Amino acid sequence: MKELLISLEHNGGIPLYEQIYQYIKTEIADGKIIAGEKLPSSRALSRQLSVSRSTVDLAYEQLESEGYLESRPCIGHFACDIEGFVQVEPNKGKTSQAPKRRREGYSIDFAVNGIDPGGFPQNIWRKISRQVLSDEDAGMFQLGDSQGEWKLREAIASYLHHARGVEAVAEQIVVGAGNDYLLMLLSMLLGKSSKIAMENPSYDNAWRCFRSLGHEVVSIPLDEAGMKPSELEESGARIAYVMPSHQFPMGMVMPLKRRLQLLAWAKRQSGRYLIEDDYDSEFRYIGKPIPALQGYDQHETVIYIGTFSKAIAPSIRISYMVLPATLLQQYRELGSNFSVTISKVDQKIIEIFLREGYFERHLNRMRALYKGKHDLILKNLKDMTSICQVFGENAGVHLLLKLKNGMTEEEACRLAKEAGIKVYPLLAYFPDCRQAGDGEGILLGYATLKEDEIQRGMNILKEVWS
Amino acid sequence: MKELLISLEHNGGIPLYEQIYQYIKTEIADGKIIAGEKLPSSRALSRQLSVSRSTVDLAYEQLESEGYLESRPCIGHFACDIEGFVQVEPNKGKTSQAPKRRREGYSIDFAVNGIDPGGFPQNIWRKISRQVLSDEDAGMFQLGDSQGEWKLREAIASYLHHARGVEAVAEQIVVGAGNDYLLMLLSMLLGKSSKIAMENPSYDNAWRCFRSLGHEVVSIPLDEAGMKPSELEESGARIAYVMPSHQFPMGMVMPLKRRLQLLAWAKRQSGRYLIEDDYDSEFRYIGKPIPALQGYDQHETVIYIGTFSKAIAPSIRISYMVLPATLLQQYRELGSNFSVTISKVDQKIIEIFLREGYFERHLNRMRALYKGKHDLILKNLKDMTSICQVFGENAGVHLLLKLKNGMTEEEACRLAKEAGIKVYPLLAYFPDCRQAGDGEGILLGYATLKEDEIQRGMNILKEVWS
Repeated sequence: MKELLISLEHNGGIPLYEQIYQYIKTEIADGKIIAGEKLPSSRALSRQLSVSRSTVDLAYEQLESEGYLESRPCIGHFACDIEGFVQVEPNKGKTSQAPKRRREGYSIDFAVNGIDPGGFPQNIWRKISRQVLSDEDAGMFQLGDSQGEWKLREAIASYLHHARGVEAVAEQIVVGAGNDYLLMLLSMLLGKSSKIAMENPSYDNAWRCFRSLGHEVVSIPLDEAGMKPSELEESGARIAYVMPSHQFPMGMVMPLKRRLQLLAWAKRQSGRYLIEDDYDSEFRYIGKPIPALQGYDQHETVIYIGTFSKAIAPSIRISYMVLPATLLQQYRELGSNFSVTISKVDQKIIEIFLREGYFERHLNRMRALYKGKHDLILKNLKDMTSICQVFGENAGVHLLLKLKNGMTEEEACRLAKEAGIKVYPLLAYFPDCRQAGDGEGILLGYATLKEDEIQRGMNILKEVWS
Repeated sequence: MKELLISLEHNGGIPLYEQIYQYIKTEIADGKIIAGEKLPSSRALSRQLSVSRSTVDLAYEQLESEGYLESRPCIGHFACDIEGFVQVEPNKGKTSQAPKRRREGYSIDFAVNGIDPGGFPQNIWRKISRQVLSDEDAGMFQLGDSQGEWKLREAIASYLHHARGVEAVAEQIVVGAGNDYLLMLLSMLLGKSSKIAMENPSYDNAWRCFRSLGHEVVSIPLDEAGMKPSELEESGARIAYVMPSHQFPMGMVMPLKRRLQLLAWAKRQSGRYLIEDDYDSEFRYIGKPIPALQGYDQHETVIYIGTFSKAIAPSIRISYMVLPATLLQQYRELGSNFSVTISKVDQKIIEIFLREGYFERHLNRMRALYKGKHDLILKNLKDMTSICQVFGENAGVHLLLKLKNGMTEEEACRLAKEAGIKVYPLLAYFPDCRQAGDGEGILLGYATLKEDEIQRGMNILKEVWS
């Protein structure tokens, strides 16, 4: 046991116990105090340094809990063997730089997702959020139900019933932070051995999610009514992912007959399910919205998925799914182990937003806004009938143009790009190779653009595609 | 083609087009208009009903999009075959009732999770939230980076470096809605074939999550320093899940030597990883917090997971993980397909909370609050040395009592229950059978209790366990 030559700075900013701790730690790290060596007792060291004994105790305790010292009862403190000891050095020279935003030089972007820049109901959201946060209910900050709060689920069930013809009670509803998360959860409930059939073309993201989760995914061609039932039957898939209200990217509405054929497919063999992604069903500009496929299901085969991200804002991560009774059991066994992914504050905000009619009014406002943009594009397309034919109108926030002027998608996109306009080739949404008959298509999204931008954009497209 | 005997109510609340739509739909559903039957032209029907032609067009379009009618260009509209047609009936007699809260008749609950009821920084949270929501930045409502916003990740990296000795840059950080979600994501990156070693006893929830995700999970016994390296080596596991800062439920701090042994284990074979769950490292009541295991790692083998749910509120679903470079590539290929699970508003709030020093002040306040409760229990335990021995003190928000009075956990819990006190048996946290030497243990959590409740609770426990 050797004496420790610590010189304490009494007027420095560093607490005394920390100076002692630091000194001994460095001595051990540098091999100056070797493993097994006994340290002075805290009584002795405190006397030597003229500090209180508790100061030394504190340093010893810290060293002990970090593994530099071990204490043998009634004997004293001994230095430990710290084989391969590594000092924590600040950031090991790691540097970090924010990723540079690529500026692609487009002046107008017909993006197929996103919302109107002024579309977020900021004032109401702020008002409700203030109301929720001033609620003195302490339960608001405790962990909640893994399926989501009961009252929110009731509000969603009621909304879905009235607006979408969905038959659901709160027990069947699971809320989650976005569709991708719900697909993750669902993937667990369905099991990896489930082969999933997707429309071709389809949402590239759902496709990628299922692939990333290890599912076998098969693509089923579409006809003008949607996914072909005969090919679905032949595929051997157990799950089919469809968008009956407004197929993405093709934009068609699945007629009742095809819906019933798909339901018949699901019923034919036990364990088959239809995932109904009702992603932008809120936006329909003519007539009443079409009831969801789920509402026609009599055999618990439809998993209904919807989201507030499209209708309110993409950065609001709130989605929901309606599980059929058969999967609810699975959820309780496997899924309910995972804590809910939406904060209680956000759950409460959206509950009030639904319950007090704000959502309905918001949708009406957005519908009118988007209809104006939709109609403006259609009006412009009337002068372009020799260039392209329009599909998927009267719903959603994008249109599909099929080129008739002999141009390829690539050419059309390139010409648009050279004029500063971003449009989207249909090709990107074919996870599998496309069929000969699919033609060359361009997607125009209009949610994020102002009407004057749309007008300017359409003028330019007319010119460069002529 | 037969005439349609529609009688319109011009003064009813139902729009004319909807009355026409409803009439034809019902006729088709009832088989009064049969498949293939031609309907009157919209011109003829509008004349017959004395309504504008666009009213009839609207009804026909709705019927067409729902699949009741099909239109053959230049010929007219025909009724469709709607085999097996099902009317959407309101809620099919489904009823729903909020699940009843079980009231268990405890007057004092030493819960091991949760926060102090007044602990949520409500005023500051509200203030920042108002500030964030009044930000006119439209980007606030667009979908963000799947890893989380760059600035938030920078703030987390900086906090982790200073407070926890974690060596990370923003690129390595992935934020997600709670630890369970991050474990889900991580499970995907690691692959299902990875056998995972967990401490026994351990967090029951992490255990259940990994099992639900289909992993093989093995349990490794603990000695007084934590997970035993030799048994870990023998287990054949590729991943080890540990809580070096304050093991749950045993409460021990892993000494440096053991940390280095685990790092050596991970380095020994490529593809091995340590998951460091640093769940309540913020709360340490003596000396400085112990640097994270991750800070000692020189070989990119540690996955560090932390959360704001413990330190701020369980209902705030914000966690983060630091991925080693080797997994970052995997994340970019697989994980980045999944959209971020935290709203941008919440990300911004927590970023400001960190950046402007609120978190540090909040932690100091909570630390003082919890230390008071911790010390109060310890003071009471001084009179109970013949009943039990205390473990895991000076950190976290729970203590472990090992019974010395010959009682079993079951008895001790039952006696407490009869007196209205809820305490937690250690048994619940052994996913695998416990070893003979583990003894009988009781967990006392104190985060959610007030000091007078703790005092009353301890008085009663003293009495019933004597």
